[in-house]
Amino acid sequence: MNLDPVHWHNGSLMILDQRLLPDEERWIEASDWKQVAEAISSMAVRGAPLIGVAAAYGLALADNDPVAKQGLASTRPTAVNLFHALDRVANSKDPLQEAHRISEEERAANEAIGNFGASLIEGNATVITICNTGSLATPGIGTALGIIRVLHRQGKLREAILCETRPRQQGLKLSAWECIQDSIPFRVIPDGAAAAFMKTHGAQFVVAGADRIARNGDTANKIGTYSLALAANAHKVPFAIAAPTSTIDPNTPTGEEIPIEERDPAELLEVAGHRVAPKGTPAWNPAFDVTPATLIDHIVTEQGAFSKPYDFGV
Amino acid sequence: MNLDPVHWHNGSLMILDQRLLPDEERWIEASDWKQVAEAISSMAVRGAPLIGVAAAYGLALADNDPVAKQGLASTRPTAVNLFHALDRVANSKDPLQEAHRISEEERAANEAIGNFGASLIEGNATVITICNTGSLATPGIGTALGIIRVLHRQGKLREAILCETRPRQQGLKLSAWECIQDSIPFRVIPDGAAAAFMKTHGAQFVVAGADRIARNGDTANKIGTYSLALAANAHKVPFAIAAPTSTIDPNTPTGEEIPIEERDPAELLEVAGHRVAPKGTPAWNPAFDVTPATLIDHIVTEQGAFSKPYDFGV
Repeated sequence: MNLDPVHWHNGSLMILDQRLLPDEERWIEASDWKQVAEAISSMAVRGAPLIGVAAAYGLALADNDPVAKQGLASTRPTAVNLFHALDRVANSKDPLQEAHRISEEERAANEAIGNFGASLIEGNATVITICNTGSLATPGIGTALGIIRVLHRQGKLREAILCETRPRQQGLKLSAWECIQDSIPFRVIPDGAAAAFMKTHGAQFVVAGADRIARNGDTANKIGTYSLALAANAHKVPFAIAAPTSTIDPNTPTGEEIPIEERDPAELLEVAGHRVAPKGTPAWNPAFDVTPATLIDHIVTEQGAFSKPYDFGV
Repeated sequence: MNLDPVHWHNGSLMILDQRLLPDEERWIEASDWKQVAEAISSMAVRGAPLIGVAAAYGLALADNDPVAKQGLASTRPTAVNLFHALDRVANSKDPLQEAHRISEEERAANEAIGNFGASLIEGNATVITICNTGSLATPGIGTALGIIRVLHRQGKLREAILCETRPRQQGLKLSAWECIQDSIPFRVIPDGAAAAFMKTHGAQFVVAGADRIARNGDTANKIGTYSLALAANAHKVPFAIAAPTSTIDPNTPTGEEIPIEERDPAELLEVAGHRVAPKGTPAWNPAFDVTPATLIDHIVTEQGAFSKPYDFGV
């Protein structure tokens, strides 16, 4: 499967609108940085590495205009890949070339992450994951889902268990779609069923992506990841984070300092455009949570798999 | 709020069809036990105590026909209240009177549970709960939500936090509806956000209902309860089960022996009649999980609040 959900084509940035998946494959043709910013903030494009790549191309479209850099940086607060990518393009003499380079580096990083991650896991493994961290979240095979892909290639995967990932259902919609495309054996479960699954079925590995990894290894990722890590810990199932080093932010000392985006409660209260909650229902809808480093057994990057205790100082 | 979602009227059993809430208030008028059985298995009526009451009236409608007893008993496997209520009606000389008595006892039990539970909690409390355990799940004020109601009456409730409760969203739909009716301050959160909520906001109490409590205190309840108990445990927030003693089954030694119903994957894959998962997506959709007694700080019944270790031998 090689989707290329963000790619350069004839002087425009082509962005697959993931909000319409799996029902419809519609592309946004962005010729202006504002269209790219809108695609990021509306989550037409999502996934920390892919947000970075899209923003890089967006800034290239604006020929490094500082206003565009500011606008692109303010789309989403948590994923640090966004800021890294913008800085790299802003400091380069050839913005488009730098954006291409970032995309290629992320693609190569995925392969390395997949291999390092798979080497941690014995055969016939049931692997639980959350959100979408595959070819729709990154250039290439993905991070956590990339590890699952490599395991499948190597004949070591019994089954992938995909947490639905409320409220936006990236597991149920996007990761399921990728698994079907690649004939990866899988089942979807409600987020609240992960602990029960570990208890009744067992699992060999739990792996999630990351939006920002602090210097001490505390990791912000999709809401529900912390709960999943607690469940893995209770069942002594190894819990890993898979992310390119561009997700590590040595300037953030601990998870306490990671800004957590809160999104529109409608994401939880409405489903498929249909309001399911009673009128007047208030909700708390954080996009991410922070998993403390103490619960993370491995942080798998393109440079290798790190173990506790973590220190990603510069 | 006094809804009476299951009540006797002019020789028929009136059942509020909860599948249509909060959009529509439609009543099923059951004059035949088969209609009652269908209402239970389709989850038009749900909540362990209310299932027991509905089944009791169903058997009374059939004038204690053993075929009806068998049919009603086979609607759902986990909630033990169902079997208790059927046995009581079957062994009585006046089935309708016995059904009335069961309903009244459950109503009174709720008040006692509410008071015993509220006495465990200091003022200005944030209380987290899951599923619907209120006036739509029981006759009366409810079990876990009954405790929240009493706290609110006593001016001791800061806020109720309702887990959405995928896949059927009983928290988002039904408990939110009850809280709005009774002006109880609340917010809904995704199930996966409960651990993050405890970490970022703090909570004073977590309370859930029960579908079956084994002799040793292991408790089957809505899927996600076990995960919630693990999160409470990690944050040292007291975790309680609230249920009438009719939910305790001394004949089930431990949670291992509780049969767990698995329901149609469509409950997870479709929302509001709209398919959101890609075609060909398989799912695991257990209706319940088992929380081990070691994670349960209190079991609150109409006879008082019990503490670890539990032994509900006859």
